[in-house]
Amino acid sequence: MSVKWLSLLLLLQLNCYFSSGSCGKVLVWPVEYSHWINVKTILDELVTRGHEVTVLTSQASVLIDPSKPSAIKFEIFPTLLTKDDFENTIKHMLDNWTYMVKDSFWTYFSTVQSIFGEFFDMQMKVCKDVVSNKKFMTKLHESRFDVVLADAIGPCGELLAEVLQIPLVYSLRFSPGFSLEKYGGKLPLPPSYVPVIMSELGDQMTFMERVKNMMYVLYFDFWFQTFNEKKWNQFYSEVLGRPTTLLETVGKADMWLIRTFWDFEFPRPLLPNFEFVGGLHCKPAKPLPKVLWRYHGKKPDTLGPNTRLYKWIPQNDLLGHPKTKAFITHGGTNGIYEAIYHGIPMVGIPLFADQPDNIAHMMAKGAAVRLDFNKMSTTDLLNALKQVINNPSYKQNAMRLSTIQHDQPMKPLDRAVFWIEFVMRHKGAKHLRPAAHDLTWYQYHSLDVTGFLLACVATAVFVITKCCLFCCQKFPKAGKKNKRE
Amino acid sequence: MSVKWLSLLLLLQLNCYFSSGSCGKVLVWPVEYSHWINVKTILDELVTRGHEVTVLTSQASVLIDPSKPSAIKFEIFPTLLTKDDFENTIKHMLDNWTYMVKDSFWTYFSTVQSIFGEFFDMQMKVCKDVVSNKKFMTKLHESRFDVVLADAIGPCGELLAEVLQIPLVYSLRFSPGFSLEKYGGKLPLPPSYVPVIMSELGDQMTFMERVKNMMYVLYFDFWFQTFNEKKWNQFYSEVLGRPTTLLETVGKADMWLIRTFWDFEFPRPLLPNFEFVGGLHCKPAKPLPKVLWRYHGKKPDTLGPNTRLYKWIPQNDLLGHPKTKAFITHGGTNGIYEAIYHGIPMVGIPLFADQPDNIAHMMAKGAAVRLDFNKMSTTDLLNALKQVINNPSYKQNAMRLSTIQHDQPMKPLDRAVFWIEFVMRHKGAKHLRPAAHDLTWYQYHSLDVTGFLLACVATAVFVITKCCLFCCQKFPKAGKKNKRE
Repeated sequence: MSVKWLSLLLLLQLNCYFSSGSCGKVLVWPVEYSHWINVKTILDELVTRGHEVTVLTSQASVLIDPSKPSAIKFEIFPTLLTKDDFENTIKHMLDNWTYMVKDSFWTYFSTVQSIFGEFFDMQMKVCKDVVSNKKFMTKLHESRFDVVLADAIGPCGELLAEVLQIPLVYSLRFSPGFSLEKYGGKLPLPPSYVPVIMSELGDQMTFMERVKNMMYVLYFDFWFQTFNEKKWNQFYSEVLGRPTTLLETVGKADMWLIRTFWDFEFPRPLLPNFEFVGGLHCKPAKPLPKVLWRYHGKKPDTLGPNTRLYKWIPQNDLLGHPKTKAFITHGGTNGIYEAIYHGIPMVGIPLFADQPDNIAHMMAKGAAVRLDFNKMSTTDLLNALKQVINNPSYKQNAMRLSTIQHDQPMKPLDRAVFWIEFVMRHKGAKHLRPAAHDLTWYQYHSLDVTGFLLACVATAVFVITKCCLFCCQKFPKAGKKNKRE
Repeated sequence: MSVKWLSLLLLLQLNCYFSSGSCGKVLVWPVEYSHWINVKTILDELVTRGHEVTVLTSQASVLIDPSKPSAIKFEIFPTLLTKDDFENTIKHMLDNWTYMVKDSFWTYFSTVQSIFGEFFDMQMKVCKDVVSNKKFMTKLHESRFDVVLADAIGPCGELLAEVLQIPLVYSLRFSPGFSLEKYGGKLPLPPSYVPVIMSELGDQMTFMERVKNMMYVLYFDFWFQTFNEKKWNQFYSEVLGRPTTLLETVGKADMWLIRTFWDFEFPRPLLPNFEFVGGLHCKPAKPLPKVLWRYHGKKPDTLGPNTRLYKWIPQNDLLGHPKTKAFITHGGTNGIYEAIYHGIPMVGIPLFADQPDNIAHMMAKGAAVRLDFNKMSTTDLLNALKQVINNPSYKQNAMRLSTIQHDQPMKPLDRAVFWIEFVMRHKGAKHLRPAAHDLTWYQYHSLDVTGFLLACVATAVFVITKCCLFCCQKFPKAGKKNKRE
């Protein structure tokens, strides 16, 4: 290749990375199901803007389907996990969660803990299959990606970014107890007014609710520090060839794209490298032909003539239909955001994960009522529906949330894509990284400084007391001495 | 007026407030000098977008000049303060600050404290003149403003918003010790990595620097809680006719527009109702005719032929000139932002207020060197200039900051105006207000919860110990009994 051609190529390359921000190369470490549905919206937009998007996936994938026609590239890595293994594990986890008897805090959370343990163990197996595959890793190295976009709840993306030495952007709904956000991202979460995820509390807490929140926080901290993390620290240290931790690696993320917004969240502290992009997948509804009902099983005999059954329905278009009065939902974040976007009040029947919490948020904001999946009757459902349809406050509150969602300085999808492009353009976003990352936990909480200052005060008090005592002892003596003289 | 006309008028009015967001009515409580220069940029933009802007001012104003032709309306209130009084007080304050010998922490801050005391006392007099003027207040009431835009450092704006019962948006560079932001706005400022304003510290602090920062924080907290605040609490309670405090009234602000950004700030926690809009006044430079020097006094005899003297120069255009190599600055935030915008390295000669801190920030980011105004020689200035011009790292760092300033998802001025319009459209921004406002200081820090939990643990330990002791006492007796039998 002549020097002239090489220069031209170099110039084009530089132009791509530095000026227009287009034609970047994005490597994606996704998580399945609803996580994928949300992240795919970002990927489609990245592709539309001219970027090259490569998604890592395996033959065990379910929704992440490389066979579907798409402008997104898929890089399939070999893994011992089969599709059946994966689906069975997930089904077992979610059934366990949905049908468990929530009779006490301890039984509930020990089950939740074992469910997350199962998920993280499976995730680690898959991650090991990727990073130990030298040929595959060499291929990734040679592809010279500009950024890793990873779902933080499925660890491995941060490890890939570290091995490939490229910047990292996270997409995240939540981690159990907000542990990754708090200890990895250094996000402050004061327990006095920030209800921890899965506590189902609001931000207006009574004293006993604040006690409950604090106990949840302590429980999650203990769980995260003790159990899952240790295995991961060892694994990451082995791969990177130096002592490190999961949290240290997570903490290198340049940007966190959180999949909620202030219509859903209770206002709480954030950091400059946290962007709340909830509802980025929402869009105006397309017209619908008739009333619909998605149903997979046998048609019930009692079904009225005004109800139609479909295997799949365009949920967003349905929620955006002017005649839609209410949304009966399991409370997934994607669905809730579609309801918020279109201003539809909800009847929530949460099943697992963040769903009970999501419905609790919507209830606190006056846009939903909640039913218990394991206990509800037909009458309960009917009453709940009547309540959200006939009491105008639910519609009003849903419309208020919708207004907040629509009235933003910039659309959430545009903000998400902006920050991914920014990180590609500038090879990171170091100017947004708080110095908290360089402190130990006791330095972060100023415990060393407080201890030192208290020691100083104690010493001063001691010295002054001693001086006073010395003076008191000396002067009476001097007085006596004077008397004698 | 016929019912038809009345309906039409009402319809137009509703249309203004609820749909387009245009033709809102903004009442402005400004602060003089550089504060006014910055805020006026926002006001001009609001006027351009069709809003009606009314600025409260008095005959004592200096830069806020109602006689200059402007689309901004001025409402002049009578005050006992004259322009001479005002200018002399400010001059006295700033001279005191600039020329004081900074030999110790205590002498420095007792002077600073008395300077701020003087300023706040003057501010209170003016505020009393406004709120006690019934005719003037009735006029403001009848004008039906949609929002108060106030500079938070000159208290009174929040009182006006409360009396007039309309939403409040703040513009703010800083308050001493960040007290208003921290205790009024509930902004978290961890002393371990957030250097307090006027400490001149960076975010990478040694142990002793963190001790210093903590002492500054404690000092400012003590100062603010003890001195200035008390007078204001009483004054505000009297005016509002119920017991209240300055901080409670400040805490009602819907939005805080902070006049810095992450190129200038060290990354730190923020809240959803804090928007960092630093550099909103910056704009591309217009061409310059020749080399210039602003100078007010007698022309020095030693002046070279390549230096021209002018009473006023367009600083922004000069900084944007391609031949500009360095900026000798007193370190005001407006000027620093113009240098950042155009990527010009700085020689800082700070005089007072946040200027030493601003230069410390620019030094930490490698874009400035600092000189001491009271001690520097001609050689020092020459060496400093040579350093920032000849060492390429200063230019590179200034250009890096410039890139951060330019590469934002949305321009700072647009963001500032968006949030003012948002607050007008929705009569506030309650969804961004953290529940921290409803907590006492000990609840906020979870001291009551921690105390309760510790008491529970202590009780449990006590009961268990008692049980063990009881068992120990009982079993030996039983043993002895058995032996006897």
